[in-house]
Amino acid sequence: MTPATECRDRLEALRATLRAQGLDGALLAHATDVFYLSGTRQNAALWVAAEGEALLLVRKSLARAREESPLPDVRPFPPSKELAAAVGAPRRVGFTFDAVPGAVERFWARALGAELVDVSAPLRAQRSVKSRWELARMRETAALLAGVYREIPSFLRPGLREVDLSAEVEYRLRRGGNEGSPRLRGFNQEFFMGFALAPGSSTAPSYFDGPVTGRGLSASSPLGASLEPIPPDVPILFDYTAMKGGYVTDLTRMAVCGRFAPELARAFEVALAIQEEVRRRLRPGEVPSAIWARAREVAEQAGLGDRFMGPPGAQARFVGHGVGLELDELPVLAPGFDAPLALGHVVAVEPKFVLPGLGAIGIENTFAVGEGGGERMTELPDDPIVV
Amino acid sequence: MTPATECRDRLEALRATLRAQGLDGALLAHATDVFYLSGTRQNAALWVAAEGEALLLVRKSLARAREESPLPDVRPFPPSKELAAAVGAPRRVGFTFDAVPGAVERFWARALGAELVDVSAPLRAQRSVKSRWELARMRETAALLAGVYREIPSFLRPGLREVDLSAEVEYRLRRGGNEGSPRLRGFNQEFFMGFALAPGSSTAPSYFDGPVTGRGLSASSPLGASLEPIPPDVPILFDYTAMKGGYVTDLTRMAVCGRFAPELARAFEVALAIQEEVRRRLRPGEVPSAIWARAREVAEQAGLGDRFMGPPGAQARFVGHGVGLELDELPVLAPGFDAPLALGHVVAVEPKFVLPGLGAIGIENTFAVGEGGGERMTELPDDPIVV
Repeated sequence: MTPATECRDRLEALRATLRAQGLDGALLAHATDVFYLSGTRQNAALWVAAEGEALLLVRKSLARAREESPLPDVRPFPPSKELAAAVGAPRRVGFTFDAVPGAVERFWARALGAELVDVSAPLRAQRSVKSRWELARMRETAALLAGVYREIPSFLRPGLREVDLSAEVEYRLRRGGNEGSPRLRGFNQEFFMGFALAPGSSTAPSYFDGPVTGRGLSASSPLGASLEPIPPDVPILFDYTAMKGGYVTDLTRMAVCGRFAPELARAFEVALAIQEEVRRRLRPGEVPSAIWARAREVAEQAGLGDRFMGPPGAQARFVGHGVGLELDELPVLAPGFDAPLALGHVVAVEPKFVLPGLGAIGIENTFAVGEGGGERMTELPDDPIVV
Repeated sequence: MTPATECRDRLEALRATLRAQGLDGALLAHATDVFYLSGTRQNAALWVAAEGEALLLVRKSLARAREESPLPDVRPFPPSKELAAAVGAPRRVGFTFDAVPGAVERFWARALGAELVDVSAPLRAQRSVKSRWELARMRETAALLAGVYREIPSFLRPGLREVDLSAEVEYRLRRGGNEGSPRLRGFNQEFFMGFALAPGSSTAPSYFDGPVTGRGLSASSPLGASLEPIPPDVPILFDYTAMKGGYVTDLTRMAVCGRFAPELARAFEVALAIQEEVRRRLRPGEVPSAIWARAREVAEQAGLGDRFMGPPGAQARFVGHGVGLELDELPVLAPGFDAPLALGHVVAVEPKFVLPGLGAIGIENTFAVGEGGGERMTELPDDPIVV
């Protein structure tokens, strides 16, 4: 359950944004935003006045919303005609254009008779800074994830299909209390729980905004594990998320049944070097786009520039992404992201290389930004798992 | 892979809608709609001219989109300034307001310099009518699902936690090639793969638009299996989906370790009677709202009206829902749905009762509308599984 003090601090930070933008309040409709600010993800809309109490309007289930949310004012959702009056007839209202369908936006614009103004960017920026309580939650999901990775030697063997291997990981994550698929804010982005990939699949391109995404099971689900069997002596990439209490962490490790080709072993060492270059810079005041540039520079110096973060010709342009209640949060270690890092930022750092014909290789850990550089949340040795 | 003839027929049906509405074309941005019409769900937008060829504009991955889609014109996504010209400078353009965020809608309105008009409703109506090819795909997912249910006696035993039982089902579905979580069109609706529920959890209300949804693992994921152990002699409700090639089917069966209370056994018989009343009416020309009314009448005559489709005071008002590429398709057997049934409609019929203190009980099968009434796709005996 989200403590009352958490909701209070989060609402106060949002109110400061609203006042700075001259807004009368914000209407939050997207479930993840409502959960972040109210502690419940029941079917509800949250009104946050720039000055005054927040008001949670619940369609279903009112009983559970009252049980889950520490907010004092949790009410049944009123008839549409009464909505404007219920929230004090505001004129300019913050709304999240990035995550709410146009039909729902039209409903609220009509119901409130107000001008809606996009507050997606400041809300995402606010959410990217985690409180101590949030960091503790994320360490719990990191522990769940690392614990399952420790079991990999007990079930990994050559000849298993990628999907069978993935099912083994998913099964253990679920029994450990993993809540399901991580949420994504990006339009049309989907992610099941993660993937276990061998080279034929790990080098395939896909729609997903990641360096290594897998071939998947069909044109409908062209991401993740495929039906191909895992051969010996190839790099097997495990990239999974875990979610507990809504908080997500992200972790990649390599495994091999036998041994890698030397070219892959060398690329792995470069990935570790890049991870350390990035980690040292995960300090308040460092600039994400500059960290990206440094990571890319190390890859180029190693002669692997054209294989960094994707196959040649289809490379992703980032080396890390924020993570929290969603898998695709701010900050992003990528060109164009120039707002400096702050304490409370959490970043999944994932330097990876795709070597055509040989496979994908790399590392990923989730770090909290710290005064002395990134503090690792995913406590598990970086070494490849050899069986 | 979607056959070229399927895409051709689907595009032609959409063009007829566009011409009837006086639109120059439609721009499809939502991945499921793009997949339905083009055969690929890569990161792409689909332009469908009211007269002329369709044009698939691909951000990522172009290679896979060309491999997956039978459409002849699959191109790289052009710079924003060239988009209007690329699609022939249309003036009135169909768009799906129900499923696309406002920010993306604004991008397209600006890029095309066109008036966007909502075509969500006719597109959803079109998609609700499945071709023979689609029905064959759905029978495949139904067979996967039924096969896993047949294995339930091999792992069900009292004392397992709901989440452990769910993990067993999920594991087998995944190894059978299940692609992941079913897609939902409804805003803020989430569904993992399904749930295995005992009474403390199966009678809990939730945000989800279903009669029985489970307590879940936290306030962030308040749906599905909980951490509670399964006691003996209680009704255990298994409600899972499977998805292959994007097509979803939905199936519920009851199980018990021991035996049910007589009151539950009687409610189960009423659920079967309602299922048969509904099934007989799944014929072209029958009206969904009238089928709902008849289902409710049977529940009332049995003295179970206030426990039908949810706990007293929190009842859902439907007895079946369309299913296909999404779990929440048309038609819905509910008040207000007065468009008659047609051949090609597929409906998951799920009469369920929630008896406070005793648990939830019911049945669910996926049926295709047929001349002689609903044709069952989920081939598995309705009987409770007794271990």
